[in-house]
Amino acid sequence: MAPLVTLKSVASRAGVSYQTVSKVLNGQIQVAPETRERILKAAEELGYRPNQIARNMRTQRSLMIGYSWLPTSPNQINQILDQFLTSMAYEAEAAGYHLLPFPFRNGHVDDYRELIDTGRVDGFVISSVEYDDLRVSLLMERKFPFVAFGRSNSGWDFPYVDVDGAGGLRKATGYLIKQGHRRIGALAWPEDSRVGNDRIAGFFEILQSAGLEVDPRWIERGEGTFEFGYQASRRLLGLPLDERPTALVAMSDTMAIGGIHAAREHQLEVGRDIAIIGFDDAPMSQYLFPPLTTIRQPIREAGRKCVEVLVSLMKGEEPAEKHVLLSPSLITRSSA
Amino acid sequence: MAPLVTLKSVASRAGVSYQTVSKVLNGQIQVAPETRERILKAAEELGYRPNQIARNMRTQRSLMIGYSWLPTSPNQINQILDQFLTSMAYEAEAAGYHLLPFPFRNGHVDDYRELIDTGRVDGFVISSVEYDDLRVSLLMERKFPFVAFGRSNSGWDFPYVDVDGAGGLRKATGYLIKQGHRRIGALAWPEDSRVGNDRIAGFFEILQSAGLEVDPRWIERGEGTFEFGYQASRRLLGLPLDERPTALVAMSDTMAIGGIHAAREHQLEVGRDIAIIGFDDAPMSQYLFPPLTTIRQPIREAGRKCVEVLVSLMKGEEPAEKHVLLSPSLITRSSA
Repeated sequence: MAPLVTLKSVASRAGVSYQTVSKVLNGQIQVAPETRERILKAAEELGYRPNQIARNMRTQRSLMIGYSWLPTSPNQINQILDQFLTSMAYEAEAAGYHLLPFPFRNGHVDDYRELIDTGRVDGFVISSVEYDDLRVSLLMERKFPFVAFGRSNSGWDFPYVDVDGAGGLRKATGYLIKQGHRRIGALAWPEDSRVGNDRIAGFFEILQSAGLEVDPRWIERGEGTFEFGYQASRRLLGLPLDERPTALVAMSDTMAIGGIHAAREHQLEVGRDIAIIGFDDAPMSQYLFPPLTTIRQPIREAGRKCVEVLVSLMKGEEPAEKHVLLSPSLITRSSA
Repeated sequence: MAPLVTLKSVASRAGVSYQTVSKVLNGQIQVAPETRERILKAAEELGYRPNQIARNMRTQRSLMIGYSWLPTSPNQINQILDQFLTSMAYEAEAAGYHLLPFPFRNGHVDDYRELIDTGRVDGFVISSVEYDDLRVSLLMERKFPFVAFGRSNSGWDFPYVDVDGAGGLRKATGYLIKQGHRRIGALAWPEDSRVGNDRIAGFFEILQSAGLEVDPRWIERGEGTFEFGYQASRRLLGLPLDERPTALVAMSDTMAIGGIHAAREHQLEVGRDIAIIGFDDAPMSQYLFPPLTTIRQPIREAGRKCVEVLVSLMKGEEPAEKHVLLSPSLITRSSA
């Protein structure tokens, strides 16, 4: 299929400014005959059509990529939306596409059906993917192009880009072991969370390979909120002195901050008396007391890769990589 | 113009499920003749057309709203993007529109020209508005429907929704005056910032009406970063004891956090030895030591209002309100 022809590309080919092309094609100014000729020739050679809707009608493509995100509650923040949208938008633009974002209503896929049936998008990037994800099964069944940012059921074969959460927890926990910690606790997500299970698996793996035991009391599972991180850490720090963890790894920075508050209540100086590591590298985490050691996800690369793979699929090509796993990195500051 | 007719509305009118309508209209299942009849009648009465592109061709509308945002640098965070996008998307959806977001390249408006010329959007919401904003002058000149989230040059008349930043600073500064502070400093934005000037005007107004002097050394102007807030506060706290401010108001939470770090270096306990107030109510601000007193902007209402006004304009109607000014609120915690 032909790439999107823009006024910009016509201007570039004709060697004149965007404004000149726009005004000449809209009959708003007079220019030298040879300039006009050059512009019309460039437009014709590139197959430029002034109205994108008319063009879409001809090609039967919307040149739109649907993307839905899970809106956060007003007192929380989506740490990755800006970076993820920005990187997707730049990559999409380079391929002649725009994004069509819509809020994701967990468990409902009518928006997806409708966008397909009305021809408003040519493909989807989906995020906040979980086990038995209805969007994955719908899009696989409809054979509609999509890329998931995240994995789902292990038996389902579909294109995805994901961050290696297990690898992230191996790095964080391994760092604590190297510092001499032997009793390490975890602020983890519920057992029905696919992302949470991926991360905690890395935690158990590295402890096992180091020959360290994990007391089941040291694993707290709950929502990724400040409140849960705070209450869970209070319980962990309430254990007898020689049985309580000397270090905590949290599955999110927000939970880790709850842990820092609980430690202060116990008169513990974080970084000296207890080590705490987060996950996200939220921009504010560098300004905490103490600055938070955490795991940073390559969000921009993930957004770029999702669109790159999707563009191949929308063109009917086999993508170079169908399963992309990106490595997160450990950002060491003074909380651990 | 007719509202967008969706499969959902056909299903609702016919009293059957979305899936049934979809499958019947696509010839994928057999249903009872009276059910089929009811669906076809509902589709016809509502004017449902299965392909949105074909429908756009007929109505010459894209049913898209362009929105560009200024991507933040990787170590900063856009405090409002999620809330603003969510509220716009819900309001747009209710009116039959979708959003088309694209990254804003400061000072460049070719993306805007191209989206208009190719008919890909029916209107714009613009944000990060400044003095002499090229987008405002372009869209006014093209008489293309748009609503600005923010004001620009006072002589330009165009539809906007804005938060009353001056009112916010009056609340913050007035609160400090009531607590007995007489030497109040400000971490302000550069003089070419329209939003910054709006906010600082409220600061001067309320001090003047309280008969309090402002030493010019107490006003620091710079970027809204942690680093600037930190360095500026170090300078302010370096003034002789009886000449230095006892309270600081910052134009952003990030600057305020820089101020908290500088105060700790000076062995000052924030909230007791010095008062600091931010602006934004960033989600993390509630978890700081001490939790930050700050100004919260009604972002969801702003997003909703922008789309509401724009939808009127796109329909060729006069909007009920062309200039909307929303009041921010003071969130008191323990930093002041």
